[in-house]
Amino acid sequence: MIYFDNSATTKPHEEVIESYQTVSENYYGNPSSQHQLGYDADKLLRKAYEQAANMLGVSNQEIIFTSGGTESNNLAIKGIALRYQKHGKHLVTTTIEHPSVLEAFKALETLGFEVTYVPVDASGIVKLEAIKRAVREDTILVSVMHINNELGTIQPVQAIGEFLAPKKYTFFHVDHVQGYGKVELDITRARIDMLSLSGHKIHGLKGTGLLYLKENVQLFPLFHGGGQQGNLRSGTENIAGIVSLVKAMRMVSEQQMHHPNHLHELKAHLISRLSSLKQVVINTPEDAAPHIINFSVPGYKPEVIVHALEERRIFVSTKSACASKSPDESAVLKAINLPANRTKSALRISFSYQNSEGEIELFYRALQKILRDLSQVMG
Amino acid sequence: MIYFDNSATTKPHEEVIESYQTVSENYYGNPSSQHQLGYDADKLLRKAYEQAANMLGVSNQEIIFTSGGTESNNLAIKGIALRYQKHGKHLVTTTIEHPSVLEAFKALETLGFEVTYVPVDASGIVKLEAIKRAVREDTILVSVMHINNELGTIQPVQAIGEFLAPKKYTFFHVDHVQGYGKVELDITRARIDMLSLSGHKIHGLKGTGLLYLKENVQLFPLFHGGGQQGNLRSGTENIAGIVSLVKAMRMVSEQQMHHPNHLHELKAHLISRLSSLKQVVINTPEDAAPHIINFSVPGYKPEVIVHALEERRIFVSTKSACASKSPDESAVLKAINLPANRTKSALRISFSYQNSEGEIELFYRALQKILRDLSQVMG
Ligand SMILES: Cc1ncc(COP(=O)(O)O)c(C=O)c1O
Ligand SMILES: Cc1ncc(COP(=O)(O)O)c(C=O)c1O
Repeated sequence: MIYFDNSATTKPHEEVIESYQTVSENYYGNPSSQHQLGYDADKLLRKAYEQAANMLGVSNQEIIFTSGGTESNNLAIKGIALRYQKHGKHLVTTTIEHPSVLEAFKALETLGFEVTYVPVDASGIVKLEAIKRAVREDTILVSVMHINNELGTIQPVQAIGEFLAPKKYTFFHVDHVQGYGKVELDITRARIDMLSLSGHKIHGLKGTGLLYLKENVQLFPLFHGGGQQGNLRSGTENIAGIVSLVKAMRMVSEQQMHHPNHLHELKAHLISRLSSLKQVVINTPEDAAPHIINFSVPGYKPEVIVHALEERRIFVSTKSACASKSPDESAVLKAINLPANRTKSALRISFSYQNSEGEIELFYRALQKILRDLSQVMG
Repeated sequence: MIYFDNSATTKPHEEVIESYQTVSENYYGNPSSQHQLGYDADKLLRKAYEQAANMLGVSNQEIIFTSGGTESNNLAIKGIALRYQKHGKHLVTTTIEHPSVLEAFKALETLGFEVTYVPVDASGIVKLEAIKRAVREDTILVSVMHINNELGTIQPVQAIGEFLAPKKYTFFHVDHVQGYGKVELDITRARIDMLSLSGHKIHGLKGTGLLYLKENVQLFPLFHGGGQQGNLRSGTENIAGIVSLVKAMRMVSEQQMHHPNHLHELKAHLISRLSSLKQVVINTPEDAAPHIINFSVPGYKPEVIVHALEERRIFVSTKSACASKSPDESAVLKAINLPANRTKSALRISFSYQNSEGEIELFYRALQKILRDLSQVMG
């Protein structure tokens, strides 16, 4: 099997599943319980906060564990909007954010907030100048993703962070779900106030995620209750999930450290192979992230290619998984003004450190054959 | 080890952990992905909806899987408030709800909602008459728990449900986190619109929960995004967690069916033993749930007793775990107007089907000895 749909979800590492299992069996106490089982669970939880914070270069109290990227994004966006609405009701984001960002903003519009959706340029980049023009006196939040999930484009988050830093009540959120472990981002240097991660995109488990929240930035919680996680995210802590997330974070960080060129090499190889196929147009710009490659085969239905590949046990996707159910064309590709024959024929390859050059070669040969067969049928 | 803190959290069943593990390893596809791995995951997910719905006697589309009881409660309460605020901004609940209910209501007060907190009587019961008096033309939500987590009292939810049923825009939410698998409750007969469950209270895993949401009742989601779960709770589904929750639900339902008297027998035994100790006053009323017994030892610090029991590997709690971090007395016992010497000396025993009469006997002897030793020190 060749799995090239790692931006949709990844296969959890064995070690991650094992640590989840060990914790579930041996540390099942409620961390709030005032007896040894509770203390043991609490101690493990503290260690997880510390390790996550160390890996992100932030402090323990700046970590909130969540149930995934969607929760992290919603907590950041709605949390700031509802908490700081007295300072202004204007919000800024881009047109190519993930639905868990875009839809959260649309929901806030129904609650009386005003949102500016900043467009991106032809290569899918939001220009700092465009953000500058959008931000007003009453803007309380700017949310810009680091790596786009369909195209792989890298947004200039550090430049945006530096621009926003002096504005006391304009907070900066970054959706780093696709970037973590693949494209370097220094939270402190980029002046980020909130940053979202998701476990299942880095060979961790579904139902795990994290929100970095800068000290002294407050949120209106989505979950009120027993006061866990500094009152910002109540609910009995999913310690096994939390420990497994920290494990997955460490594993992907180590891969990144030890194999800094691996994904770049895979991408270069794939691009060179794809470029040799005359039916293929590559949509992902040159300087994008190394693990997401989007291309179109104008005139071909992408589902047909996906299924033909699937018969050879090669898994790729048409567009981002969470939007796959809607039969529409890719909204992201449309936002960069590609013609319909490209927005409607797009495929996405997304790598993890587990993938190899050999797999790319097999994929290439399969795709070549599929396109040849299809063109004969069509001809 | 004797674990009598099952209302704080339970030890997950081996079978539950195993099913989590099997699903994580073999069904890691994203259910939204348009290829075989996605379809396989989606199929499993559909089966889980069906099984959960069957066990609750409701239909598949009425199930929302969440990250736990706190999320379910917040989603129900804030979801109704924000969605139906045009029909009224008045909400009703009781003074002895779990913090994940009470704090959600307090948060809504800061957003301009008005909340009536209906008091309970001396045995911790909210009277139907009191609810009737509180409900107004502009009341859009009534939230009453089934089983109280500190006292074990059973609320008259069916009577309240029947009273509310004819009111089209007054929705009824029941926190059933402590009741599920222990005290029968028919969602349809009790005319419930929303009902919350939590996995880790029934030997399931932390980070899993469920909200029943009656057909045609709408919610303002806490998580907007990719549109999963009928657009009510976006985010890549935690399939392994969901399957494990369904497994835990089935296991506790089977225990309840096959051993309907077990918890009642344990309780009768414990009550008879405790009644023989002159220092002990039982706070839980006679007709309460079978698995939660609250008692006070006036004049004694409950932590001291908890720790002395703990040295004998017997685990009980002072009050509900999620409030344990606050050094205050029990808010629930205060709400039923117990004198301070009882509210400040309360202990809670909470059973699961795993517990035995033998354990109660060991507990009783340990407690007897501890009280004797302590009274000598104090005397
Ligand atoms: C950029 C981006 N943000 C957020 C998410 C949502 O994360 P999750 O699936 O953990 O809810 C995804 C993945 O679907 C994503 O690609
Ligand atoms: C009655 C009640 N409701 C809700 C909750 C919250 O559930 P969870 O711990 O899954 O967030 C609890 C447990 O803490 C509870 O006892």
